[in-house]
Amino acid sequence: MNEKEIIEAVRLAVEKFSGGVEKMTLALAETLAAETMKIAENAGVKAVVCVSDEAGNPKTVKCMDDSYIASYGIAVNKAYTSVALKMPTSELKKLAQPGQPLYGVQFTGEGRIIIFGGGEPLYSKSGRIIGGLGVSGGSEEQDTGIANDGAKFFEKIT
Amino acid sequence: MNEKEIIEAVRLAVEKFSGGVEKMTLALAETLAAETMKIAENAGVKAVVCVSDEAGNPKTVKCMDDSYIASYGIAVNKAYTSVALKMPTSELKKLAQPGQPLYGVQFTGEGRIIIFGGGEPLYSKSGRIIGGLGVSGGSEEQDTGIANDGAKFFEKIT
Amino acid sequence: MNEKEIIEAVRLAVEKFSGGVEKMTLALAETLAAETMKIAENAGVKAVVCVSDEAGNPKTVKCMDDSYIASYGIAVNKAYTSVALKMPTSELKKLAQPGQPLYGVQFTGEGRIIIFGGGEPLYSKSGRIIGGLGVSGGSEEQDTGIANDGAKFFEKIT
Amino acid sequence: MNEKEIIEAVRLAVEKFSGGVEKMTLALAETLAAETMKIAENAGVKAVVCVSDEAGNPKTVKCMDDSYIASYGIAVNKAYTSVALKMPTSELKKLAQPGQPLYGVQFTGEGRIIIFGGGEPLYSKSGRIIGGLGVSGGSEEQDTGIANDGAKFFEKIT
Repeated sequence: MNEKEIIEAVRLAVEKFSGGVEKMTLALAETLAAETMKIAENAGVKAVVCVSDEAGNPKTVKCMDDSYIASYGIAVNKAYTSVALKMPTSELKKLAQPGQPLYGVQFTGEGRIIIFGGGEPLYSKSGRIIGGLGVSGGSEEQDTGIANDGAKFFEKIT
Repeated sequence: MNEKEIIEAVRLAVEKFSGGVEKMTLALAETLAAETMKIAENAGVKAVVCVSDEAGNPKTVKCMDDSYIASYGIAVNKAYTSVALKMPTSELKKLAQPGQPLYGVQFTGEGRIIIFGGGEPLYSKSGRIIGGLGVSGGSEEQDTGIANDGAKFFEKIT
Repeated sequence: MNEKEIIEAVRLAVEKFSGGVEKMTLALAETLAAETMKIAENAGVKAVVCVSDEAGNPKTVKCMDDSYIASYGIAVNKAYTSVALKMPTSELKKLAQPGQPLYGVQFTGEGRIIIFGGGEPLYSKSGRIIGGLGVSGGSEEQDTGIANDGAKFFEKIT
Repeated sequence: MNEKEIIEAVRLAVEKFSGGVEKMTLALAETLAAETMKIAENAGVKAVVCVSDEAGNPKTVKCMDDSYIASYGIAVNKAYTSVALKMPTSELKKLAQPGQPLYGVQFTGEGRIIIFGGGEPLYSKSGRIIGGLGVSGGSEEQDTGIANDGAKFFEKIT
């Protein structure tokens, strides 16, 4: 066994002990993205959906036909933000209002910090953030709901 | 008839069925920009006027003599924003205020999202967005009014 | 039939006349991305694959497990470049060398112009560019080959 | 007479003495852009044409139908570069090659410096640079030729 094989073996062991996956894979991201698009479709929303890994980098991004051009960047950055600040963007929203503790956070991060709903951190069974989900395309309420339902679905499959 | 001619013929047929044009052309953009500058002139405003295509890319931009230097980027981005988010920038303004659903959208999109009036999506007769109009140079009320009148003029010529 | 239905019917008619699709859809983009990932896998490359629409905006992006972090931006921009300059990035490469006609093009376009292989414009049967394919992850030769094979596959399905 | 009126009167006097215009106007820019598009059309080139003022800021930009998406930024920046460095971009090209005096200039200016042909400074009768012309859409040779012919036309009308 070389080092890489040992690491992979240990990772699989951790997953077995923790009862779930501990790392975002493309296969997992695709499964979540497909389900999230179904949820969006049922809500009548033409969404862009992004699933990122634990570094906030996208694993998969999908733009439903006729979605907003601007939604691509917003969905990618919602996924990033929820990982980078370890909270749903709907929570960050409250903290980023004028007078609130994180007011100003939106001017940092080279335009990658999104402060409205639709971004959700994705947890492994052991409680670690292993990815993020970003949804953009409907009203903020819709995006928040869709991303939330997507994150709940993720819990079931990990 | 070769394939390209057939496609052009059918495109014209689509336009006829729908009662209007379905694609922004330079000729159309120039006609709209010229009329919008007249509207601006009548309002005493030295404006920059941009007409974009359905992807938000400019087709034509015109800077009236003695207009603001900063208005160039603002007009181009108002046209982009109204296409990218499918609404007048005066509508987006309301949604982007502190405490409102899209507060923070102005810090995304690499500085291309404008959240004050003067940007209008341009619709084909069949209801598709086929371009955007951006006006910058007067007060926000003036820019909003000029862009709105321009968009109404566009309805008549498509 | 209402106006929208007429337009859709005529669009389908155009596709029939031209013998193929005339617009990038998410479904089409996913099919091409999946096949391109298979090609990459067979070549032993862990790639990021992006399929864009005719404006150069991504429709789908997929990052194979263990692909380069930097490949995300490169693949997205290869797809953009091949659409924005209407040529494979392997062709642009030649033109962008010191002393050649387009030397310097790589410093324009806000960092979105990629001048090495792995980006291919995607043509409809009627000869229009309706999208772009970007591949990043292997050697330049591999990326170029994978993207080229992907573009050939696209010809068959449109 | 107030100050503005005095300045304008003196400017007109200078123009009368020098036998030509001393300031780029939108009307002048439009005339030049229209002629340059005719030159491009005769050369079979679908070009983006930009005419800037003496600060390098665009007065008018026009994207001929089916021109390159990337040409918008390139044409605008060719006009800027020719004003900002007071030479045709085809001259700058020679100076910016590896080993030449200005090698590296292309990495400055926040991506606005273009080092291939198609940008021409525009002179008043008295020899001052009062604007720039940028053309992008054909081969470098074509863009250079079109911009050069455009600049010659400008000499006649000023």
